[in-house]
Amino acid sequence: MASYGQELAKRFGDQCGPTDTTLPEIAFLRQVLARKTVRSYQDVLPSDSLLDLISAAALSASTKSDFQQASILRVLSAHKRARLGELFPAMPWIGSAPAFFVFLGDARRLERIAGYRNKPVANGTLEGFFNASIDAALALQTFILCAEAAGLGCCPISVIRNKVDDVATILALPDRVFPVAGLCVGYPARAGYLSLRLPRTVTVHRDVYDDGRLNDEVADYDQRRAAVHSIPKEQQRLVERYGEAEFYGWSEDKARQAASPEGAAFPRYLRRAGFTFD
Amino acid sequence: MASYGQELAKRFGDQCGPTDTTLPEIAFLRQVLARKTVRSYQDVLPSDSLLDLISAAALSASTKSDFQQASILRVLSAHKRARLGELFPAMPWIGSAPAFFVFLGDARRLERIAGYRNKPVANGTLEGFFNASIDAALALQTFILCAEAAGLGCCPISVIRNKVDDVATILALPDRVFPVAGLCVGYPARAGYLSLRLPRTVTVHRDVYDDGRLNDEVADYDQRRAAVHSIPKEQQRLVERYGEAEFYGWSEDKARQAASPEGAAFPRYLRRAGFTFD
Repeated sequence: MASYGQELAKRFGDQCGPTDTTLPEIAFLRQVLARKTVRSYQDVLPSDSLLDLISAAALSASTKSDFQQASILRVLSAHKRARLGELFPAMPWIGSAPAFFVFLGDARRLERIAGYRNKPVANGTLEGFFNASIDAALALQTFILCAEAAGLGCCPISVIRNKVDDVATILALPDRVFPVAGLCVGYPARAGYLSLRLPRTVTVHRDVYDDGRLNDEVADYDQRRAAVHSIPKEQQRLVERYGEAEFYGWSEDKARQAASPEGAAFPRYLRRAGFTFD
Repeated sequence: MASYGQELAKRFGDQCGPTDTTLPEIAFLRQVLARKTVRSYQDVLPSDSLLDLISAAALSASTKSDFQQASILRVLSAHKRARLGELFPAMPWIGSAPAFFVFLGDARRLERIAGYRNKPVANGTLEGFFNASIDAALALQTFILCAEAAGLGCCPISVIRNKVDDVATILALPDRVFPVAGLCVGYPARAGYLSLRLPRTVTVHRDVYDDGRLNDEVADYDQRRAAVHSIPKEQQRLVERYGEAEFYGWSEDKARQAASPEGAAFPRYLRRAGFTFD
């Protein structure tokens, strides 16, 4: 019945859709395959009841060993929203989105709880950091998918980690608690664009991790992606260092972005916040 | 219309359900609030088409900066499945679940792609490790929720990190690629149990992170949880060190578990795999 071929073609731009026409029709699968990041919102505040319900659903996500190391912080204060927004003038939706959340990796709670039970737990290890990070990400993605099912649009904000000291001050985060990402939420004013993904020949492996054809596959992907959503000349990164590229595809853009990493503040913050990565 | 009070009461065991009866009816929200981990599967292999479709949906998850650093490895080989299963005899579903996936943090791909573009990218930093970890978790949770929407049940397997050297050998993982979690997938044979979550007074914060009442809230939670799903005496951990507890609640169980952490192999593996955490 349901071929899903159209959604897959839009998401991957290739012809690897399922030929099996007996797949069940699952509305949520179509929703996920067609999902888009939304950065432009109607001037309508989603109800507290709905946002609380979505937060509750987010906390129904899986959690490593049932340690429950995700925390959700909703920023309601107009003053705090404005201060956060001022840190990132290039992304005005951080200050202006109807609702804003911060998903926190929370390695503090388990350590405190162990203290109540008189057990020695040092949760600033890599294991503690990793488990708390993953729990926060699982809750974040569940929140996003539930919000989208409710007709809301979302934009995750990882850039808050680039100025994590200021962010942690504004939000008064205690030790061993760190932001994984912020999240802008609101009813969409404009649909975003559907982000074409790398071909599954590169990202999905069977039995053995195999990226032997990565170079060719990425070159094809760059072309397919540029055909759908090319990057304007004025948005090329680091032109002063690398020049203006004739063809500026996804891989050139991501290589330039990664070549001048912006995340140096985060490990410093984490070490001060009690993490050792041992 | 839809109160969701029943689902919230089961998930949190408290009386903090929404009083707003104008909330829209969203079937997916109810599904998420009622979701359960499933470790016992019918002897039926989900179709390749369906699993491929769910993998495609998982790769539609958000990804930090569009770097796309998640990879999905499906383990089909009976020999590899058996070898993985033998590593964890206490969890027979790892070897026997109808389908088994490993969600990989993939900091390798971006570094290779940057190489093709002649850009110097050292992606073994904490930033590279973190972004790849989060991307894998976002894909993992999207996979789980899509699988559940398709009537499948899942069990994430983080324990594979405890024997990551053996796992990486069996799966022939290259440098800068690491398992975030495995995932057992199949049609449920028995419903799992609904895992009661910490009260939202502890996990959801407004404007300021506040865990001032953590001790009391966790004590109440321990009692509520034990009333629904108490831990049998023979499942108490580390009795030789801490004795047999009269009341053995969630917090005692998690404190004992965290007091003898099992994750020491993972940071060693990561450092050998090219991560510095700088």
